[in-house]
Amino acid sequence: MSAGLVVIGNEILSGKVADANTPFLARELRVLGVALERVIVVPDEVDTVAGVVADFARRFEVVFTSGGVGPTHDDVTMDAVAQAFGRPMVENAGLRRAIEGFVGSAVNEAHLKMAMVPEGCELVIDGHPAFPTVVVENVYVLPGIPEIFQAKLVALRDRFRSQPYHLRQVLVREHETDIAEFLNATLAAFPELLLGSYPKLSNPEYRVRLTLESKDESYVEAALADLLRRLPQGFVVKVEN
Amino acid sequence: MSAGLVVIGNEILSGKVADANTPFLARELRVLGVALERVIVVPDEVDTVAGVVADFARRFEVVFTSGGVGPTHDDVTMDAVAQAFGRPMVENAGLRRAIEGFVGSAVNEAHLKMAMVPEGCELVIDGHPAFPTVVVENVYVLPGIPEIFQAKLVALRDRFRSQPYHLRQVLVREHETDIAEFLNATLAAFPELLLGSYPKLSNPEYRVRLTLESKDESYVEAALADLLRRLPQGFVVKVEN
Repeated sequence: MSAGLVVIGNEILSGKVADANTPFLARELRVLGVALERVIVVPDEVDTVAGVVADFARRFEVVFTSGGVGPTHDDVTMDAVAQAFGRPMVENAGLRRAIEGFVGSAVNEAHLKMAMVPEGCELVIDGHPAFPTVVVENVYVLPGIPEIFQAKLVALRDRFRSQPYHLRQVLVREHETDIAEFLNATLAAFPELLLGSYPKLSNPEYRVRLTLESKDESYVEAALADLLRRLPQGFVVKVEN
Repeated sequence: MSAGLVVIGNEILSGKVADANTPFLARELRVLGVALERVIVVPDEVDTVAGVVADFARRFEVVFTSGGVGPTHDDVTMDAVAQAFGRPMVENAGLRRAIEGFVGSAVNEAHLKMAMVPEGCELVIDGHPAFPTVVVENVYVLPGIPEIFQAKLVALRDRFRSQPYHLRQVLVREHETDIAEFLNATLAAFPELLLGSYPKLSNPEYRVRLTLESKDESYVEAALADLLRRLPQGFVVKVEN
């Protein structure tokens, strides 16, 4: 299963807030076995958001949006998702009743904006918080507040559970330039291996972290054995899961 | 001046590493008065990176890339930037001499990969670290290691200095739904205002942080006065710079 994430937020692009939802989603999806293939951060502009949501919905099996959901002028995500699929925004009678029941006689236009959703969307009652998650085709609309984004994602995750990745890691004492030929040789023998090479500055223990991954556990183990056979004695500090 | 950032890295999409370069760049550019308009995170795939670099280079006045620069198989950014502009990769004689001088007789293919750059690129000697920054047209190719990304960006920043933004912030005691009408009224009177509304959960002091911004200081101050006049007494906790 492939996934994309659209983060909506001037506050992130202008450096006021560091986005916490991307790393959370990336880790969760990896554990679930879902391949996050692209993340994009865009401003609070309906046409821009609609364009990238439409593009992502075609490219990936599941798309998440983060942010831009709420009662104020800069909350444009629902309108944008509706526009991406050419659907009108309609008032959901159940949501309106729930909002009126919660707010009582103080209900105003801003409260009722929260009852407007893209026509024909699915409302997933996840119970956390009370407000349901809006799903339009393969797009899950999540709020940007990290506590709520994360709680909703956890509540939804069984929908996306897939075959997990198997990961092995090798910590290496030498520079990347000294091991590149061995990595290339292992990749030639195991072309489907997901092989990452990450130098670490000023670490007393190792210089490079190698990550070997696949959904096929025996493939990872065979590739790991191949690489360990090629690396000269003394290069490897440690092998980890 | 408008800017875009292309982050290249399977390690970020797979949740192994939280990207520290986006928040750093966002903050730096804001201080410089540059509008960061889009960030995209893509895997280590030449065609994918080339496609988004070409797209961003057309859309924005300046583009930064983060990551994928190095001697191993997963370092594809130079090739991708060359492809984005339809330029061949060529060996730079000065870089080759510098590498050979540094490495000596142990020089290998992986070292010499670092001397390959897109034809006709600019090499900016920023001194930190010794390796220059490669610039192709409006695209600045920066390494992903945060310490080096940040040092290089700081060394380059005077190239991008623009008119700064002026920011005022208002902390509000009430819910967003209770202030939305006042925000809308101020925006109608000050349509060029950059106005953000950010709810904060479980903060004992305030419920919403409002940010008012413009490159025109007197416009921000007039909009702030307008908003403060509209907000009912007792709503405002504090006004900040």
